[in-house]
Amino acid sequence: MKIVVIGASGVVGSAVAAELAGRGHEVVAASRRGPVAVDVADAASVEALFRTVTDVDAVVCCAANAPTADLVTASDTEFTAGLSGKLLGQVRLARTALHHLNRNGSITLTGGTFTEPLPGGSFGALVNAGLAAFVEAAAPELPRSLRLNLVAPGWVRESLAAFGWDPTNGTPAADVARVYADLVEGDAQGAVVPVTTAAGR
Amino acid sequence: MKIVVIGASGVVGSAVAAELAGRGHEVVAASRRGPVAVDVADAASVEALFRTVTDVDAVVCCAANAPTADLVTASDTEFTAGLSGKLLGQVRLARTALHHLNRNGSITLTGGTFTEPLPGGSFGALVNAGLAAFVEAAAPELPRSLRLNLVAPGWVRESLAAFGWDPTNGTPAADVARVYADLVEGDAQGAVVPVTTAAGR
Repeated sequence: MKIVVIGASGVVGSAVAAELAGRGHEVVAASRRGPVAVDVADAASVEALFRTVTDVDAVVCCAANAPTADLVTASDTEFTAGLSGKLLGQVRLARTALHHLNRNGSITLTGGTFTEPLPGGSFGALVNAGLAAFVEAAAPELPRSLRLNLVAPGWVRESLAAFGWDPTNGTPAADVARVYADLVEGDAQGAVVPVTTAAGR
Repeated sequence: MKIVVIGASGVVGSAVAAELAGRGHEVVAASRRGPVAVDVADAASVEALFRTVTDVDAVVCCAANAPTADLVTASDTEFTAGLSGKLLGQVRLARTALHHLNRNGSITLTGGTFTEPLPGGSFGALVNAGLAAFVEAAAPELPRSLRLNLVAPGWVRESLAAFGWDPTNGTPAADVARVYADLVEGDAQGAVVPVTTAAGR
């Protein structure tokens, strides 16, 4: 398959690109900077991606950051930082991709799982739950046998390590990547797949 | 209690205002037009409401419309019609109200429940699930013993009748209104309360 991986320079995105390439697929690595540039928060850039890269079977979006923000003190802009990219950007990506992907193709988006309440995470919770509900509701409405699924990772080991936090509570990025690749290769439709690691595993 | 009801000219909002007044509360009826004007999609108008109407114990928002839109053919603007008011407007209302309400006050928002998949309802599903997750996550972070809850109505009988549809599958607005009033008067915190009627009841 020819598969576009968006956010391919990130911790999870690079692991997904490597996993898919290792399975023999043709991977087009897209990110905000680089030869195939795309910003999911920018509608025109998403349209341009699918005009430039054609004959695509699947798109995987790992560009999905949503920082925490304090409920009481954050500005509107700070509080809704995950809105334009992770939430609306991925919804728009799905709605754009459905016009361009090859028949039987698939769209795999990134949500998230909070295994326990995260201070400042209320808008992130909104984004993750909203994406999950969107994927479940939109999947049956897709044309041309396209599929739409969501991976909802908890903490990723390499990301925790980069923050200087205890990495043992995180799932290795390579394990998370296999979940994406399985969704691309399989026949799941409207699935929301949490990926978490029991603390201390 | 002194209670601001936003969307008080609508089917549910007017029933909520009547129910709360019937229980002996002082109700301030706010809507997009009228003596106390507010548009939850407009940040300045929400700020102005709380500067004008003071000593408020509770705010109830029933101004929460999100029309359906086709996944494949709707424009971005059509597809995300529920975004600025129902989703972001209510989030901003909660974040504004928490600075103004009296101690031990409450905020009650409106989500929604689809008892079965609704064609064109994928963004509405996103909005409803996002609001539910936000309320659950934000409630424990509120200052001054404030409370935050969500009513998630399914079809309302009077609204179905107005559309010319079979009203028997809907819950009477007066029944929905009692759920709001109970949340205002009770001690629920972070609750998401679906209100649906079994078909044919």
